[in-house]
Amino acid sequence: MAVEASRRGFLRSVGIAGGAGMLYSAMGALGLAPVPEVSAEEYRAPRSGDFALSGRSRKKVLVLGGGIAGLATAYELGKAGYDCRILEAKDRPGGRNWTVRGGTTLTDLDGRTQKASFSKGQYMNAGPARLPQSHVTLEYCRELGVPLEVFTNQNANAYIYQENSAALAGKPMRWRTAKADVYGYVSELLAKATDRGSLDKELTATDKERLIAFLQNFGAIKGKADGFAYTGSDRRGYSVEPGAAFEEGTVLGPVPSLSDVVASGVGQRFSFEFGYDQAMLMFQPVGGMDAIPYALAKAVGQDRITYGAKALEVKNLQDGAEVTYQDADGRTRTQRADFVVAAIPPMVMARVKHNLGADVTAALKYPTAVPVGKVGLEYGSRWWETDEHIYGGITPTDMDLSTIWYPSYGYQGRRGTLIGYYNFGANAVAYSDLPHAQRVERAVSRGVKIHGEKYRSELEHAFSVAWHRTPYIEAGWVGWTSQTGPEYQLLNKPAGHVYFAGDWLSHVIAWQHGAFTSARKVVTDIHERVMAA
Amino acid sequence: MAVEASRRGFLRSVGIAGGAGMLYSAMGALGLAPVPEVSAEEYRAPRSGDFALSGRSRKKVLVLGGGIAGLATAYELGKAGYDCRILEAKDRPGGRNWTVRGGTTLTDLDGRTQKASFSKGQYMNAGPARLPQSHVTLEYCRELGVPLEVFTNQNANAYIYQENSAALAGKPMRWRTAKADVYGYVSELLAKATDRGSLDKELTATDKERLIAFLQNFGAIKGKADGFAYTGSDRRGYSVEPGAAFEEGTVLGPVPSLSDVVASGVGQRFSFEFGYDQAMLMFQPVGGMDAIPYALAKAVGQDRITYGAKALEVKNLQDGAEVTYQDADGRTRTQRADFVVAAIPPMVMARVKHNLGADVTAALKYPTAVPVGKVGLEYGSRWWETDEHIYGGITPTDMDLSTIWYPSYGYQGRRGTLIGYYNFGANAVAYSDLPHAQRVERAVSRGVKIHGEKYRSELEHAFSVAWHRTPYIEAGWVGWTSQTGPEYQLLNKPAGHVYFAGDWLSHVIAWQHGAFTSARKVVTDIHERVMAA
Repeated sequence: MAVEASRRGFLRSVGIAGGAGMLYSAMGALGLAPVPEVSAEEYRAPRSGDFALSGRSRKKVLVLGGGIAGLATAYELGKAGYDCRILEAKDRPGGRNWTVRGGTTLTDLDGRTQKASFSKGQYMNAGPARLPQSHVTLEYCRELGVPLEVFTNQNANAYIYQENSAALAGKPMRWRTAKADVYGYVSELLAKATDRGSLDKELTATDKERLIAFLQNFGAIKGKADGFAYTGSDRRGYSVEPGAAFEEGTVLGPVPSLSDVVASGVGQRFSFEFGYDQAMLMFQPVGGMDAIPYALAKAVGQDRITYGAKALEVKNLQDGAEVTYQDADGRTRTQRADFVVAAIPPMVMARVKHNLGADVTAALKYPTAVPVGKVGLEYGSRWWETDEHIYGGITPTDMDLSTIWYPSYGYQGRRGTLIGYYNFGANAVAYSDLPHAQRVERAVSRGVKIHGEKYRSELEHAFSVAWHRTPYIEAGWVGWTSQTGPEYQLLNKPAGHVYFAGDWLSHVIAWQHGAFTSARKVVTDIHERVMAA
Repeated sequence: MAVEASRRGFLRSVGIAGGAGMLYSAMGALGLAPVPEVSAEEYRAPRSGDFALSGRSRKKVLVLGGGIAGLATAYELGKAGYDCRILEAKDRPGGRNWTVRGGTTLTDLDGRTQKASFSKGQYMNAGPARLPQSHVTLEYCRELGVPLEVFTNQNANAYIYQENSAALAGKPMRWRTAKADVYGYVSELLAKATDRGSLDKELTATDKERLIAFLQNFGAIKGKADGFAYTGSDRRGYSVEPGAAFEEGTVLGPVPSLSDVVASGVGQRFSFEFGYDQAMLMFQPVGGMDAIPYALAKAVGQDRITYGAKALEVKNLQDGAEVTYQDADGRTRTQRADFVVAAIPPMVMARVKHNLGADVTAALKYPTAVPVGKVGLEYGSRWWETDEHIYGGITPTDMDLSTIWYPSYGYQGRRGTLIGYYNFGANAVAYSDLPHAQRVERAVSRGVKIHGEKYRSELEHAFSVAWHRTPYIEAGWVGWTSQTGPEYQLLNKPAGHVYFAGDWLSHVIAWQHGAFTSARKVVTDIHERVMAA
């Protein structure tokens, strides 16, 4: 699998094949045919007739956590008439699927509070922000009537900023320019080597001819007579735009040397675009990612969700399970059900009192919480569009802010909200150790290097999230060193009448797809058990 | 400049540098700095005070043609209070900027009529359909309040279909899969050649190390111990999607051989994405491209535009110019003005009687009209989204339909309208020689090979446009064999009081940017002349 730049690549480990499979229906087994050639075990939602037709009585299920996994569990079980109740510690649905707007407040674990002052219509998706086309999340959006628009994960006009590259001297370079140069030199080198016969062991004469024809197109390089030289092309962009009459435009130059391009490291950024779950096109709900949990909560029924309910104890019983929690008024309450689904982060669940055994507690503590931070920066003008012709997309950097995101909504409007950092691990900790205002100042001091002083002078509002410091969540996501070990296996089975669900119990961690498929698996397991009884 | 796949590449020829330049403000002269380092001759619109302050009287300008160039000319001149009138032969503004909806009719030059039966909310942009971020068209959208959304010019989930490739045996391949394989093998080959020392003349030891590190990331290839082998990666896609618990997914396979990948020719498609004016992100007006001409027409003033006005004669006079035309009621009328701007296609203008000289007529006949066709296919379901996970984007083919476009609007809705062909030259002629129903059947018979029988069985409505057979337009665009020759030079100067404008008088032919910049040039020329008098 070689090097992978994606979050998932960072987190994934080798698992065991098997389990319930969702067919990626559009790809044939040979990798070419668009029509599926095999029928995998697709998910079948429980149906409304299942109880009535079999003469069974409706079962009651208590769900801990109103994030995507918890909501989806209640939503799917509800299709067959299960009596589901969700206990959610916070005052809203969605968990990490959280859209911050003007008025939104956040109190961190250390007691510090922020209140967002974003203008009307401005928002930041503090958690998940992008939906790949193959993820089941899109099916839920269709089913729930959540309208979608393109999320701009990649933009040829965005920059790559390598502060530590001597070759680029800390100057931002457009993606399109970086690609033109890297692909140009790669093509020149491979055409030369091919032509010299260095690859005659690998290539037939016909292969060589075809490969060189491809490279001339791919790299915009000169012909054999000119040594297949890459000398630039209009793919780099223009310093003067082509226009009317005799204005043919001036192609951006000069072209850096091969050695400088290789040293710059810009090419290392390209593979992000090829990532299975990061390749364009990607999507987002119109108006904010939280349209998904709010639509789920509405479908489940608001009366079935208790907010401000903090789980204190989970007890497996001989014929059911029981949850004791503190309600929004501080009163301790107990509810009983046939099954409990714990759809909260494992490290949070590990601290809830239970009778499921010490091995369950140990397993819940096994995965590693990943610190993740994000800041939204609202500006009074969309200077990235007007001055820099960047309409959406992402600028990756080698600075501690990691990436800057340009908004995928409100194009050409009066205001706009950037993501000023989205970072993990040590960088996220470094920012979150600071008070909010200093996080912003740190991010802005970095951004100024790319976009100039307006990055500071035109800033109007900011809101920062440190997921690892957020109550009841405590991480951006978790990582497993092994998804084949006993801990992972244990939590993917019920502990008596108690089940676990969440993206952390999937191979698609940190994506809503993981939460949805985990919920579907638990729903299937519960329903099969009920129908078999 | 090597091989270029874009329309513009096909049409461009070498011109002379100079003329009014529009600075692509976001790129520095060195290709790295985001802030412009030089200030080019930017366009300055005529101002409302120019006449009053200089004591001059308002001038009258007659514009032939209410396409983008004509509308922009009247709009810009109107800013200074010029008395502009537009004579447009058709019954709507926009020219080739034309959005077809239910009820739209088209009568070809041969008298055949179609009436579109598209459902409410469904449309096809029959002419221009995409806006690059650097084009001045986006500035007009901002100025005129035309809302934008992403146009999905590229999609990793769309296919590449090479019918004539023995290696792919006519089976469609996803872009993501094609890229994974081509980049994988390119990386393997170049890493091998580099490691073997075949490029020691070009690369230092440090370069080699960095290049190989890049290739391992870029191609997802194995290390030196494994011969830098490409053996596939999840970038190809999955046959079984990763999901909950133990479902780690099944990567699409098997990987075709190096020789088959090279022979398939899929890699020849990639450079489309690097094209200066085709690289993502791209945009479209919400609701249809004709939002631009309608906004311009509104800004110009509907009372200043006469529809159904067919130009019969243009006369340059000693102190002005005169246009004789047939109005919508068939009456012949003559209007006099200080200047006339002919913003209609050159081959159409060449047939209008005039006193501008035989060299003008010859010059107008000089460029070559390019046949262009497009068909919109409305389906009763969005099977490309639900069944194939293609949310927008383009599938290029080596068939006579050229490309299939998936819609960039209405995601997850009940219906959707594809572009079933968008072809030029001989292919466009071949389709347009057929009656509408047979054009559709021909396009559908090709599409079935990619998408299966539903491509035929679920089709509900279709509308086809052959621009070269459309009255008053007669081509998709025109091409010049030389944009430095006397013909092009002649038409970029006024013939007395008569000026010419249009994308055909620019280096950005077939884009609205060309029409807008040409209009700006003529507006500048007229205004400077008036102010200098």
